Amino acid sequence: MAGTDSTRDFVISDVAPIVILVRPQLDENMGTAVRAMLNCGLSELRLVSPRDDHLSDKAIAAASGADRVLREAEVFDSLDAAIADLHRVYATSARRREMVKPIMTPRHALAGVRAALARGERCGILFGAERTGLTNDEMAQADTVVEVPLNPAFASLNLAQAVLVMGYEWFQGEAPAPPVELPLNGGRPATREELLNLFVHLERELDACGFLRALDKRPSMVRNLRNMFGRASLTEQEVRTLHGIIKELRWGRAR
Amino acid sequence: MAGTDSTRDFVISDVAPIVILVRPQLDENMGTAVRAMLNCGLSELRLVSPRDDHLSDKAIAAASGADRVLREAEVFDSLDAAIADLHRVYATSARRREMVKPIMTPRHALAGVRAALARGERCGILFGAERTGLTNDEMAQADTVVEVPLNPAFASLNLAQAVLVMGYEWFQGEAPAPPVELPLNGGRPATREELLNLFVHLERELDACGFLRALDKRPSMVRNLRNMFGRASLTEQEVRTLHGIIKELRWGRAR
Repeated sequence: MAGTDSTRDFVISDVAPIVILVRPQLDENMGTAVRAMLNCGLSELRLVSPRDDHLSDKAIAAASGADRVLREAEVFDSLDAAIADLHRVYATSARRREMVKPIMTPRHALAGVRAALARGERCGILFGAERTGLTNDEMAQADTVVEVPLNPAFASLNLAQAVLVMGYEWFQGEAPAPPVELPLNGGRPATREELLNLFVHLERELDACGFLRALDKRPSMVRNLRNMFGRASLTEQEVRTLHGIIKELRWGRAR
Repeated sequence: MAGTDSTRDFVISDVAPIVILVRPQLDENMGTAVRAMLNCGLSELRLVSPRDDHLSDKAIAAASGADRVLREAEVFDSLDAAIADLHRVYATSARRREMVKPIMTPRHALAGVRAALARGERCGILFGAERTGLTNDEMAQADTVVEVPLNPAFASLNLAQAVLVMGYEWFQGEAPAPPVELPLNGGRPATREELLNLFVHLERELDACGFLRALDKRPSMVRNLRNMFGRASLTEQEVRTLHGIIKELRWGRAR
């Protein structure tokens, strides 16, 4: 996907999809929705004919610190007006409609959003009213329908959860993060030499106390021990701790 | 990924990760959490020392029809007991800890869960108390830390949202296979109970020989040791070997 080398760059820039809540009813839900938006680096909100006041105490409290998004929201009288300046409009839907229109998963839809934004296009994502969702007429205004694959027997998400799933897929993007990261907290990985010294120390003591001598399979036992400790990706500090443990177990306070 | 051709097959089967809420406080949050679980086809819940009653009217109402999951939940007095029969334990965390343990994104972690389940291993995902999250001791019980990549300036998810993100990644099931797979050569991974017994054995001997008694930082030393051995993904056979090593080092042939 073009231009997604750094997801973080998008998040702190203004180049992000716009969230459009269509006829949201409860102020509290508008608050929890903007919290989910900001979790995912989305900060541009448009409201179409909200029933409750989106700046009520309840809305602000539910936003849990994301109230800036509510305060900067633009309010519109009609969906037409709210999407007039956009190039791409995605409509979220919990249920299949009688409508010939492409249906995408959030993951694929947000990949499309990123590509469109990279081309300089403005994108909006529509979320319908609680319970009823978007009307068929409102859906007809969108280019693409987004359905979240969920347990077909229990698929209804509340508004904030629907916003979170879309925002989450936006934020993950092509995240370059390595699949597994081992934080070393200022330490450093042990060198192979340090590991080898540890193995030799352990094996010497195991020989001395009779553990390895008793076995006719010493070579495979040694190999298994080395594999076991090798898998733990030990730090230099941990290797020193293990030296200490071997020494203390063997030579510490009288038995 | 072996056996994941159809995510739906997993969802309607019993082969799914177990959600473990550790010290959840509010009944309402337990309700919204199980709603998110069922959205994603997760139905096995364990509760460790919940503060409120998970079957209160408020909890049932918040579950919005997913109350079956609450009613079938198992309640435990300790995390140890709640994870005793599991082979893999994942801990969700909102913030970086001073702990040397692999960190994964939800997507990769759930790919690992799917692979482990396909091998017949039982997997649990830990979620900490609202606000405070998991303690460092609780984190130390897990193999892997899962961090949700979110807006670093506004990363706090509520409990149901954290459950939803993990459940969502479980349900999508399209993630690439985990980069590292550990061939077990006919063995099986140790259960948490077996690991715990090993830790207790080691710590008892270290106390007795004076190694831990000499340290004013016994708790963090114990945690580090558990993390270190936890990272090695020990098999049941290896746990038995380590028991033998501890015993022989301490009580073997005269020095």
